[in-house]
Amino acid sequence: MSLKKSRKENYPEWYQCVVSEADMAENSSSPGCMVIKPWGYGIWERIRDVFDEKIKSTDHENCYFPMFIPLSFFQKEAEHVDGFAKEMAVVTHSRLSMKDGKLVPDSKLEEPLIVRPTSEAIIADSFSKWVKSYRDLPVLINQWANVVRWEMRPRLFLRTREFLWQEGHTAHSTPEEAETETKTMLEAYCELCEETLAMPVILGKKPEHEKFPGAVDTYCVEAMMQDGKALQAGTSHFLGQNFAKSANISFVNKNNQQEYAYTTSWGVSTRLIGGVIMTHADDEGMVVPPRIAPYQVVIIPVIKKPEDENTVMNYINNLAAEIRKLIPFGEKIRIKIDKRDRKSVDKYWEWTRKGAPIICEIGPRDAAENKVMLKERLKINTSNAKEIIGKEEFIATLSQRIENIQKEMFDRAKKRLDANIRTDIKTVEDFNRYFEQSNEWIEDGKQGKVAFVRGKWSGDPNSEELLKAMKITIRCIPFDQSNTQGTCLLTGKPATMDVIYARSY
Amino acid sequence: MSLKKSRKENYPEWYQCVVSEADMAENSSSPGCMVIKPWGYGIWERIRDVFDEKIKSTDHENCYFPMFIPLSFFQKEAEHVDGFAKEMAVVTHSRLSMKDGKLVPDSKLEEPLIVRPTSEAIIADSFSKWVKSYRDLPVLINQWANVVRWEMRPRLFLRTREFLWQEGHTAHSTPEEAETETKTMLEAYCELCEETLAMPVILGKKPEHEKFPGAVDTYCVEAMMQDGKALQAGTSHFLGQNFAKSANISFVNKNNQQEYAYTTSWGVSTRLIGGVIMTHADDEGMVVPPRIAPYQVVIIPVIKKPEDENTVMNYINNLAAEIRKLIPFGEKIRIKIDKRDRKSVDKYWEWTRKGAPIICEIGPRDAAENKVMLKERLKINTSNAKEIIGKEEFIATLSQRIENIQKEMFDRAKKRLDANIRTDIKTVEDFNRYFEQSNEWIEDGKQGKVAFVRGKWSGDPNSEELLKAMKITIRCIPFDQSNTQGTCLLTGKPATMDVIYARSY
Repeated sequence: MSLKKSRKENYPEWYQCVVSEADMAENSSSPGCMVIKPWGYGIWERIRDVFDEKIKSTDHENCYFPMFIPLSFFQKEAEHVDGFAKEMAVVTHSRLSMKDGKLVPDSKLEEPLIVRPTSEAIIADSFSKWVKSYRDLPVLINQWANVVRWEMRPRLFLRTREFLWQEGHTAHSTPEEAETETKTMLEAYCELCEETLAMPVILGKKPEHEKFPGAVDTYCVEAMMQDGKALQAGTSHFLGQNFAKSANISFVNKNNQQEYAYTTSWGVSTRLIGGVIMTHADDEGMVVPPRIAPYQVVIIPVIKKPEDENTVMNYINNLAAEIRKLIPFGEKIRIKIDKRDRKSVDKYWEWTRKGAPIICEIGPRDAAENKVMLKERLKINTSNAKEIIGKEEFIATLSQRIENIQKEMFDRAKKRLDANIRTDIKTVEDFNRYFEQSNEWIEDGKQGKVAFVRGKWSGDPNSEELLKAMKITIRCIPFDQSNTQGTCLLTGKPATMDVIYARSY
Repeated sequence: MSLKKSRKENYPEWYQCVVSEADMAENSSSPGCMVIKPWGYGIWERIRDVFDEKIKSTDHENCYFPMFIPLSFFQKEAEHVDGFAKEMAVVTHSRLSMKDGKLVPDSKLEEPLIVRPTSEAIIADSFSKWVKSYRDLPVLINQWANVVRWEMRPRLFLRTREFLWQEGHTAHSTPEEAETETKTMLEAYCELCEETLAMPVILGKKPEHEKFPGAVDTYCVEAMMQDGKALQAGTSHFLGQNFAKSANISFVNKNNQQEYAYTTSWGVSTRLIGGVIMTHADDEGMVVPPRIAPYQVVIIPVIKKPEDENTVMNYINNLAAEIRKLIPFGEKIRIKIDKRDRKSVDKYWEWTRKGAPIICEIGPRDAAENKVMLKERLKINTSNAKEIIGKEEFIATLSQRIENIQKEMFDRAKKRLDANIRTDIKTVEDFNRYFEQSNEWIEDGKQGKVAFVRGKWSGDPNSEELLKAMKITIRCIPFDQSNTQGTCLLTGKPATMDVIYARSY
């Protein structure tokens, strides 16, 4: 019952299979946009709730800003900012009219409106009204919203025209405070990825040419997918006074002088779900980390004779009542009894493809013997996948089991990441040869496929040309620098800076 | 420290004052759109969380559908549906270009896209792919989303071009099941309004001409604002097979016959916040029901001498730690210690205008005497507003106090609603005379201002003309019908149906 395509056969098709067989999302009749289905949206809700708690515990407050931004707000940026992206949805009319039996746009707007690709411009406008004195600072806000970027090659979760995200926006009275904020939120993203998504990341700073347009510094967390490509999982920007100057966010400081504020912004999106899929899914389908699984335990009644129904359902209901008292990770457990009118074997494969962490099949014999038959999704292809254990033992150890699965998933992915950062490539020839190989699936425990290269970089912007031609990017300048002398992998010039080179999503 | 305008002086201006002085929302530079600020958004988050739990406990699942809907999806509706609203945001271009130094729309779309005013059309399209057999039914989904309607006279929370809402969409195999769903969700709205928002409502059915375009039946919950106008707080639509036919949501039923599904939709929006304001706020500002207050208790340290700071803050922190263990309404209590560098009296008035249910001011004397000074926001203008009680007693009774405030707020509003439904108007002349009076604030405990009229209606659509001219609408045909014979208030014809007549938002 494996997926139609394995990772090895065709990685991009395998990805589509996982998403569709797990029923997480699908393409929509609205071009380039996706429908996020309950299993996919449930995962997003868990990510949102966990991170929302973090946002609030770090003193940020949620707001909501308009999604329509007047065109003029982008004028300055377009004139001055290199790399300003212009692929945006433009609203030009505010009415439909019937003409010759056909519905057509009518009532042209005086000024076109842009559907937010990100909200720096409109939020900075509000900040300029809110901030007058140093006493009004810091302003620490966040919003959960939909945003639009006119992607030409959409892929579910990874790149769609509309997606969901959170965007934090803050204003501070000193650059130090703003930089601390930028890094605090980067750390929060690291924690979210590693502890909640079980997806290990590398923390670092983007090189000049990869920065967010208008930022002084862009920091990021980068994850490694199973095909060795990098996925930028989250970014945190120190914007200096750039946005404050263009929107006039100024304040009277403690010395009674007028000064521009220092701002930051930071975001993660539904793209994280794409990252989770390509970190954890296997050839049987999705594998969801317990912390974000809409259901951590699924119980399938196996009833062949109608006269068994009462016994089995009573046993399951009692079992579920006990399970519902558990609180793995300090949160109420999420369980589902799948009572649908379908064959139990079909249900079993459905939950396997969806990647529910623990799937129990309970029949009359289990009820009679006070036992539970279960499989951990993570172990599905191992010889000891099927376990039959006493009900009391199952309940007593379930929280720990769930927490262990989360840990195992992280450890497995961390091992993969660590094993696939090549540090032995020293010349541009070797570099080229390495990346000329085709990108395949990295089999766990094996090495040698194309993944990340950690090596020196001179910082010379001209060396980018070589990278561009090979479709390789510098993912980041990792925080853990070796500070050793060496030679730039691209130019052969002396260099001390370590960077991560990789193909990417 | 009352608001600039009282309800009596100028009700619409009073409303604006409440919103702005409570810092809940403001107009934005994006025309007709609002910025929902932390206190307003916090209220929305509480409403959302409470109702989301209800949505899930009634077996609905959350999804997310694209906000862009191809123009062609509206063509059929526009041709056939009377009352199809055409004020919509139309996306016609997908790029910005620089021409003569000015940013202009570029890359015209082949087909314009509409920013969703509601999602029946795009969701029905998905349902048509998901539903094949009676085994696939019911489909019970909901989404939390932003929607756009091109309002020409925007008012914060009540009517803005973009607003936030939830929209439930379901498909069923029988009309009975769909009608039950419609009414179940109407009951859920009633519960939300009454138990969570402390806002009493009248449940009923809309007359033909007030139905959602395309619906077979529209049910609603209607609330009474303090100026006697009605606010439609939520609607639940039984759509019959109308949307199923145009989107081809068909299934093979148990008798192996092809049949169209029966669908429903239901929604409430950020408009509810406008309703909460006009139900509970007073001339001092906002009054937030405890169940949706972002903070139920606010503690303001009153420190005049620096040497008192440690004592007072230790006392407050200990107090807060005890309070945090409480769970009024079965949910963790929400408290805030306001340590900002501002005068305590200013903080006191700020939280009063925001309507925090309980405001405590704690100084060195309270700390020394182990006491708590508090005011309940609801009692602020009464002689016993200020209470000083022992710390232990305060903590022991706090949950109950919070629950009592919620109850008092509901009771007060319920009394107002019940006292202001006129049932003694019997002729069209009296009806006219009554509604010709100007709409003023209804003072609690007094009667005689213009509010609701409950009376007979013949159902004759022609009688609407009279209503239109007077800007009065039939709010609903309430569920609790008297079933008595009488004469129609408008036409004098014999009539048995009771309806609610009112001006409305």
